Amino acid sequence: MVRVGVVGASGYTGGELLRILSIHPEVEVTIATSREFAGRPVSFVHVNLRRYYSNLKFTNVSIDELTSKCDLVFINTPTGVSQRITPKLLESGLKIVDLSPDFRLKNPRDYEVWYGVKHEAVDLLSKAAYGLPEIHREEIKNTDLVACPGCNATASILALTPLVESNIIDLEHIVVDVKVGSSEAGRKPNLGSHHPERANVMRPYSVEGHRHAAEIIQELSYFSKEKINVIFVPHAVGAVRGALATCHTWLTSQNIDDNTLRRIYAKRYSGEPFVRIVGEGLFKYPDPVNVIGSNYADVKAIVHQGSGVVSFCAIDNLVKGAAGQAIQCMNIMLGIDEKKGIDTPPLRPI
Amino acid sequence: MVRVGVVGASGYTGGELLRILSIHPEVEVTIATSREFAGRPVSFVHVNLRRYYSNLKFTNVSIDELTSKCDLVFINTPTGVSQRITPKLLESGLKIVDLSPDFRLKNPRDYEVWYGVKHEAVDLLSKAAYGLPEIHREEIKNTDLVACPGCNATASILALTPLVESNIIDLEHIVVDVKVGSSEAGRKPNLGSHHPERANVMRPYSVEGHRHAAEIIQELSYFSKEKINVIFVPHAVGAVRGALATCHTWLTSQNIDDNTLRRIYAKRYSGEPFVRIVGEGLFKYPDPVNVIGSNYADVKAIVHQGSGVVSFCAIDNLVKGAAGQAIQCMNIMLGIDEKKGIDTPPLRPI
Amino acid sequence: MVRVGVVGASGYTGGELLRILSIHPEVEVTIATSREFAGRPVSFVHVNLRRYYSNLKFTNVSIDELTSKCDLVFINTPTGVSQRITPKLLESGLKIVDLSPDFRLKNPRDYEVWYGVKHEAVDLLSKAAYGLPEIHREEIKNTDLVACPGCNATASILALTPLVESNIIDLEHIVVDVKVGSSEAGRKPNLGSHHPERANVMRPYSVEGHRHAAEIIQELSYFSKEKINVIFVPHAVGAVRGALATCHTWLTSQNIDDNTLRRIYAKRYSGEPFVRIVGEGLFKYPDPVNVIGSNYADVKAIVHQGSGVVSFCAIDNLVKGAAGQAIQCMNIMLGIDEKKGIDTPPLRPI
Amino acid sequence: MVRVGVVGASGYTGGELLRILSIHPEVEVTIATSREFAGRPVSFVHVNLRRYYSNLKFTNVSIDELTSKCDLVFINTPTGVSQRITPKLLESGLKIVDLSPDFRLKNPRDYEVWYGVKHEAVDLLSKAAYGLPEIHREEIKNTDLVACPGCNATASILALTPLVESNIIDLEHIVVDVKVGSSEAGRKPNLGSHHPERANVMRPYSVEGHRHAAEIIQELSYFSKEKINVIFVPHAVGAVRGALATCHTWLTSQNIDDNTLRRIYAKRYSGEPFVRIVGEGLFKYPDPVNVIGSNYADVKAIVHQGSGVVSFCAIDNLVKGAAGQAIQCMNIMLGIDEKKGIDTPPLRPI
Repeated sequence: MVRVGVVGASGYTGGELLRILSIHPEVEVTIATSREFAGRPVSFVHVNLRRYYSNLKFTNVSIDELTSKCDLVFINTPTGVSQRITPKLLESGLKIVDLSPDFRLKNPRDYEVWYGVKHEAVDLLSKAAYGLPEIHREEIKNTDLVACPGCNATASILALTPLVESNIIDLEHIVVDVKVGSSEAGRKPNLGSHHPERANVMRPYSVEGHRHAAEIIQELSYFSKEKINVIFVPHAVGAVRGALATCHTWLTSQNIDDNTLRRIYAKRYSGEPFVRIVGEGLFKYPDPVNVIGSNYADVKAIVHQGSGVVSFCAIDNLVKGAAGQAIQCMNIMLGIDEKKGIDTPPLRPI
Repeated sequence: MVRVGVVGASGYTGGELLRILSIHPEVEVTIATSREFAGRPVSFVHVNLRRYYSNLKFTNVSIDELTSKCDLVFINTPTGVSQRITPKLLESGLKIVDLSPDFRLKNPRDYEVWYGVKHEAVDLLSKAAYGLPEIHREEIKNTDLVACPGCNATASILALTPLVESNIIDLEHIVVDVKVGSSEAGRKPNLGSHHPERANVMRPYSVEGHRHAAEIIQELSYFSKEKINVIFVPHAVGAVRGALATCHTWLTSQNIDDNTLRRIYAKRYSGEPFVRIVGEGLFKYPDPVNVIGSNYADVKAIVHQGSGVVSFCAIDNLVKGAAGQAIQCMNIMLGIDEKKGIDTPPLRPI
Repeated sequence: MVRVGVVGASGYTGGELLRILSIHPEVEVTIATSREFAGRPVSFVHVNLRRYYSNLKFTNVSIDELTSKCDLVFINTPTGVSQRITPKLLESGLKIVDLSPDFRLKNPRDYEVWYGVKHEAVDLLSKAAYGLPEIHREEIKNTDLVACPGCNATASILALTPLVESNIIDLEHIVVDVKVGSSEAGRKPNLGSHHPERANVMRPYSVEGHRHAAEIIQELSYFSKEKINVIFVPHAVGAVRGALATCHTWLTSQNIDDNTLRRIYAKRYSGEPFVRIVGEGLFKYPDPVNVIGSNYADVKAIVHQGSGVVSFCAIDNLVKGAAGQAIQCMNIMLGIDEKKGIDTPPLRPI
Repeated sequence: MVRVGVVGASGYTGGELLRILSIHPEVEVTIATSREFAGRPVSFVHVNLRRYYSNLKFTNVSIDELTSKCDLVFINTPTGVSQRITPKLLESGLKIVDLSPDFRLKNPRDYEVWYGVKHEAVDLLSKAAYGLPEIHREEIKNTDLVACPGCNATASILALTPLVESNIIDLEHIVVDVKVGSSEAGRKPNLGSHHPERANVMRPYSVEGHRHAAEIIQELSYFSKEKINVIFVPHAVGAVRGALATCHTWLTSQNIDDNTLRRIYAKRYSGEPFVRIVGEGLFKYPDPVNVIGSNYADVKAIVHQGSGVVSFCAIDNLVKGAAGQAIQCMNIMLGIDEKKGIDTPPLRPI
């Protein structure tokens, strides 16, 4: 059994890590940290987990304890924290799956521009693999530090990668319009998340520029020589879970139809355990309601009025957008079956 | 009192017309038609309207009755019906506010392309005013036939008009990503609208091409000499009411900032009774939750990362997107105060 | 024009008071207080009210200002505040409509039991009318101090009054099971109201005993000589607005059927401008979705399996359960048409 | 591997059976029937199940095929169908888990009273075990025919059993007020389930008498010598999944406090794999949001104002209320670990 710690275990992503790890056959959770709930049983906060982890209580973060009791640590902290503790944990020989944004951007200047402060562990940036297995599986396999993507970035990159790679779109005119559920903003209440304010919204946010855009541009640029220009705008909508990226762009090639697009996506994601190309069925476009509770990403691209192309990716923001993808990365790092513990069908209706 | 008929009065738009007309001080509803509920009191279907219209029962459509009992008729029927009855009603001297799509497109070939059949009243197309007062107030004042816009088109055109008119955007690269509530699809149940299927969706539809795109292109082309290229994709999201148009495009002028945009919008909509430019406040972007139950359209445009521009318009799809705008047009046609009956603040929270 | 002040105007009930008063033809709002938002325009918080109250800013509470600028004041403060300021305002000759719980209970010992502290204005308790016009219209007309009922209490009392008055039920076995939307808990965020926690709940609260039970027992006891025993349990459910009281009890009389019950309710509420007996229609039981945005209370009682009786009352918790009923009381106090400003049909669908 | 058939596999309960059975290690689904979708792949309808059951298509019901390809059959049909096919399947030696209401009531006259027709397989009624393992585990183990309870009945009986068994409540005055999500009504659209009509309801239904009441009375009567009188009223509320039974009654014993109740429940359900007594935690009453996607039933009882008692049971109506409980019964019938395939933690937030 691999001994695993979860730093920042009382929030939604922490809860999802614990939920999924509870059914993972090769892992044992030995530490779950929470400043606010230190001393409380895990199920005091995560009331769905009553009957699970009956001996596990939240503790405060201790590097020594993590080092002595864990083989791998999930880090799930606000921006800026991971870059301070991760170097020490790596030195002690631990593997790290970081769900915070600290190691996602390769270029330290990008970090400064988007996060407004200097990065404190610049030398680790080049060692960190960007934890999107569909693009960086080999790097994930060969590193001790994985930086898991943001949920909006995951959906956007999976929707766009086949279009960018196959070189058929106008890279200077890409729009990514994202819709997300309320769980994305975490467990801490505020006015914007207050139920009467949040219940039926179609509410744009971070319109001037959202940090996930930096990840999207970084990742899509791997496949392209040209500059990529992305307008990225997220919108809060009325669900609790789910994220949908709608990517609008223009075709540069003639003779592209829906079948061509389907083949391009099918080929790109052939063999991917968690990407499903949406085809026939009662519902024929990606929609997060079809993947809730699972690690699947549903994708599809459609030609729009001859010259446009619209591609979609739907995920559960807390699973493929966070905890599930982190565990997928963990499996890859540990050399065990990539689907272990996360090979669960979505819950529907929801 | 102006005597008014509502043809197609048992659906959601019919119900909204009746709700608003019940508090309009210069109008009396004399006829409400419904094939399905003929003989039933209006409040049998619209249970919110108990205590209102206590003597009004649904009847079948009769041209003679409409002619003898009404001065103005709202037509609220499926595509293809209005073009058959409207010519007769106009001949009898009635004024018509048509909420169906029949007279929205000026070019009969556009109608054929988007609706798949020949138009049966081509000669009326040039007489019909497109019922968006913010653009066509004078024409509405001087006609007997108004064709009210679709709700998605209303939001999209109001969001984009100042940008197109002021000639600062790249007209070949415009994306309109719309989010709408479930009431838009009407009162007839189907699998897609079944609550367990519809409750938490982020579901694209009509991705290949939606008919409202034709209206958007037609209207924006008034202000532009160039060809306009719009990618238009609507999405069903989890609310009952509301529509948000998010319009993404690129600036062609330099030196445009948020203040410039604000001035452009403020000037364009100066004096408009139902368009509000969203400025300061606890929530600073347009969101339909702020206009529900009202005829207001909230708009705003923001510069995105220097070169992009994102503009928004939020409406209640059943009010400014349908019944409220129809009554606004009626007021203009009748020469009474444009705000009469619809000068009601939105309901919030909702 | 009557000059009106709203003390505690930045919350949901405050917002509803302002929304409704904006269309009330005989009232002018001269003061709106808010400690948190003093200095801000009213529409900074109530973004739905953009275009309304353009000259009104929130201020801090000042007895002098209220006295000089108002004829009547709505008080909308946490428990304990009104009993301190109301005596002064009454002395200055103002009329008071108190939406807080301070003056609802007639017996000061009841106040102590349920609120845990001594009442500070005991002598005013007997002067305060309980602001449920369907029971206390005459007292409301003849007092300067009205204590508006809690929203749960309003629905429960309206559902049960005809059964208790007509002496046909077992007063020792009454169950009131209430369902309410999230706006009932006010505008202040907390974990329980955080959207991901609150969105789909069926969550009991205050099971051991809820303060509104005291009001229900007090009011029902007017019509009864016997002791009344009520089990009262509220439940948070997934809507924003609305409250439904389901009252379960047993018949003591034989030969009561649904028609008898209908006649009893129709007679009891005959002439009431805001109580509707639900009869035929597509939906045949009370449900808050049919009264949202309005001051209506929909009621009905049904015989259950011969010996039981179940009665319902559905209201909009922020209107008939708070702001609307307060304005109804104001109209009565001022001797103007009771329906003025609140004779608006509900919004549906919602 | 046990070969399993699902008769009626295209609805929500059918979908849940397939979802759960896909991860059950000792079962293979060989037949899934659907008249409407015969010939279509299972994932055409259950789009969440893409990647699962890739070789399974819906077929029409054939007794011969069921007999030859299955060891056990789940029957999931409208009332009246199972009593016709189950006798034949039993004769062929199959085990039957019936999710329809056909074999739930032991007394054929009860069936006639509540379902309005004569039962067509009266002799099987005594052989059928009522599929609530917490009460009938031994009978389930020793029969070939299990009749799974309705979801409302499951929640109500689990909430009340400890109170009735321990003989501390007034059996003549029991109120069961149930709240349920929209998935309970199945996959077929109708006006009541249309999203704009259903989204924010607090809507009573079957107030005169709901069939699940017959099951509740039958089951509670096992533990009681006296006549049991239950008022049972279900309410549709705004979630998709979940059912909460709130049971209100009166104590006949003195000296019962919350701790006593807690001990009674803990003892009664000691060792039960799927019943959790709700104790401490951020949320301290049962609420379906804490059990969604799982087979858990969360229960608790509280003393109300000294003399009343309120007990709750929260379940996922499609899992412990239907498919999960059916699989729990299957495990018991087959002599395998009762938790196999359903030992999954709930999904939260949802």
